[in-house]
Amino acid sequence: MLGNFKFSNPTKLYFGKDSLNFLKDELKNYGKTVMLSYGGGSIKRNGIYDSVVNILKSEGKTIIEDGGVMSNPTVEKMYEGAAKVRDNNVDLILAVGGGSTIDYAKGIAASAYCETDPWKTYYLEQKSPVCKIVPVASILTMVGTGSEMNGGSVITNHKENLKIGKVFDDRLMPRFTILNPEFTYTVPTYQMVAGFFDIMSHLMEQYFSNFDDNTTDYLAEGLMRSLIHSSLIAVKDPKDYEARSNIMWTATWALNTMLKMGKHGDWMVHMIGQAIGAHTDATHGMTLAAVSIPYYKYILDGICNNGNKGIEKFKRFAVNVWNVREEGKDDRQLALEGINCLEKWMKEIGVVMKASELGVKEDMLEAIADSTITYPTDYRTLNHNDVVEILRQSL
Amino acid sequence: MLGNFKFSNPTKLYFGKDSLNFLKDELKNYGKTVMLSYGGGSIKRNGIYDSVVNILKSEGKTIIEDGGVMSNPTVEKMYEGAAKVRDNNVDLILAVGGGSTIDYAKGIAASAYCETDPWKTYYLEQKSPVCKIVPVASILTMVGTGSEMNGGSVITNHKENLKIGKVFDDRLMPRFTILNPEFTYTVPTYQMVAGFFDIMSHLMEQYFSNFDDNTTDYLAEGLMRSLIHSSLIAVKDPKDYEARSNIMWTATWALNTMLKMGKHGDWMVHMIGQAIGAHTDATHGMTLAAVSIPYYKYILDGICNNGNKGIEKFKRFAVNVWNVREEGKDDRQLALEGINCLEKWMKEIGVVMKASELGVKEDMLEAIADSTITYPTDYRTLNHNDVVEILRQSL
Repeated sequence: MLGNFKFSNPTKLYFGKDSLNFLKDELKNYGKTVMLSYGGGSIKRNGIYDSVVNILKSEGKTIIEDGGVMSNPTVEKMYEGAAKVRDNNVDLILAVGGGSTIDYAKGIAASAYCETDPWKTYYLEQKSPVCKIVPVASILTMVGTGSEMNGGSVITNHKENLKIGKVFDDRLMPRFTILNPEFTYTVPTYQMVAGFFDIMSHLMEQYFSNFDDNTTDYLAEGLMRSLIHSSLIAVKDPKDYEARSNIMWTATWALNTMLKMGKHGDWMVHMIGQAIGAHTDATHGMTLAAVSIPYYKYILDGICNNGNKGIEKFKRFAVNVWNVREEGKDDRQLALEGINCLEKWMKEIGVVMKASELGVKEDMLEAIADSTITYPTDYRTLNHNDVVEILRQSL
Repeated sequence: MLGNFKFSNPTKLYFGKDSLNFLKDELKNYGKTVMLSYGGGSIKRNGIYDSVVNILKSEGKTIIEDGGVMSNPTVEKMYEGAAKVRDNNVDLILAVGGGSTIDYAKGIAASAYCETDPWKTYYLEQKSPVCKIVPVASILTMVGTGSEMNGGSVITNHKENLKIGKVFDDRLMPRFTILNPEFTYTVPTYQMVAGFFDIMSHLMEQYFSNFDDNTTDYLAEGLMRSLIHSSLIAVKDPKDYEARSNIMWTATWALNTMLKMGKHGDWMVHMIGQAIGAHTDATHGMTLAAVSIPYYKYILDGICNNGNKGIEKFKRFAVNVWNVREEGKDDRQLALEGINCLEKWMKEIGVVMKASELGVKEDMLEAIADSTITYPTDYRTLNHNDVVEILRQSL
């Protein structure tokens, strides 16, 4: 645990089959006007919408409808939602959906009273809000992003070919989140497994950084083992409550800032994946899956050629996460075996293994690399050409 | 993850070598009168007291001195401290010390304005406070209890031969805690390793309960592995910052309520250990260490005789925490090997292995068992005679 850091996470979590029952009491802490933000309407088909609306009405709330949040929420939608918050003097934004809807809710909560262009201020320039912020709460219906207990918000600007994440401070974290694993049962398989890989990527991107011994890495290993175990059950039986509930809990802790304490993190898989998303509008978790194996092999090559200490973490990943036995293997073999186990698991749960499946073509690689934000990382820092090469290997 | 539960932990943590620098800003959130609660005076010898007092003075605070908190804080001291809080109209209780001091601070914070006898109301009857509560914050100087990020408070009543823990709600959790691993360097070895075992016991007592697959068990395994690794370094070199910082972080997460989500817990080692403490005033962690091996062997015997499913967790403990290989071993052998690994580690870090070393004698066993609170647990529920037998095997 190196460095100095602050941990503070005010989000209250209500978990379990009956967790929606807690909404009633939480609503008493907020004013009369509640904006109900949600996605394409699946919550209307599965009954969650009606349940939530009934509770809001029984508490005497005025509901401002705000449906149609897309899976990669756009800057245009954010401007529109922010205006709606301001015009209606909204007291609470209740996001019902997956990470996209919650990310969007944070975006409009910070933008409603922002006196500058919020896309430019928060996302491009990564500044903090100085204006009034509207409280956000969430009811999670799709698992993966961890947005339910952090300040993260990813917004896409198609005109600029940019998909950028902003990590807001405590003020934008959901005040409370309702986590009912049964609410995730109706998510289509493609989105479900994309979410599983998003979780794994959050765990790995924090794990594969730094060189010191750090308690958070042991926690990350535990969460990876739990995720691997439960995901293999869930893909066979999506209504296995035990598996789905463990995955839901794992997703929350994978990115609620616990695992970043004392760690730099290396978010290049997200950076490349988000660039693919900006160019293709593909499902977030699948963009990460498509580049991960090429990415980790590329990093490993760099480590092996440069004698970088990161090899220890790759070995540890193989042994502690995948139970690979060490005897008679050199460092590189052991590390590769870990990556091979990851690849095997990815195929078992059924994620996209090639960026070409998401519509990426050879002639787009330069442009996607141009949209990829790069920065120095611990194990192997990438430049533009490295990104192009990783993308090429993912075709 | 079975059941419905709520997770909420408002404690802000400031971690690292420079973490005391954050005290200044936090103090601005509280009124003028700060009660400074601490133990026997070690913080005066190692300079922490002066550093804290200087910051309090520079922020214009009126300091109410409250030293002399004993390692097992007594009900008499709690009454005295509560009166001091009330008489001085204290705005913030700043506990500087280990778990005892922080436990005591919560006790007086809940007792100052309590209109009934707080020992009876909170500890004997386990009721919640209905009176005004004074905010508590902490600066940790000894690691183990986890009191720095939870609502736990253990108070001893020597007249009644009782040492009872109360878990208060969010309102009594420290508002903020400063965690500087260097502040723990001067703790004597005996107290340091007692703290290490206290952490291990918190992890095991939550782990060895329930029969379902649960993400929190994977997290507990990660924390156990980190603790085992770092404790073996720290006993050789108590000033190894990396090891001490990992242990400090592990201790906090071992008992900040994360690991109790979806778990029943089985706190019988603490119940028996606290009864020993009430009769001998021995160091808390050592009372747990003295009974743990007999306790876990006794539980395992019960499981093996009754075909209880808990055997799975004992096997898992051996394999996932201690890297025991499974081949060619039956359930009981595998489970015992895990307990033997635990015993070997305890001897390596140097904890007390016998209750007799703490002053427990054969003719005290009945009385200690009388002071032990028992309740139904998942793997093997103990009665009075079971407790006597475990105590006898610990002599």
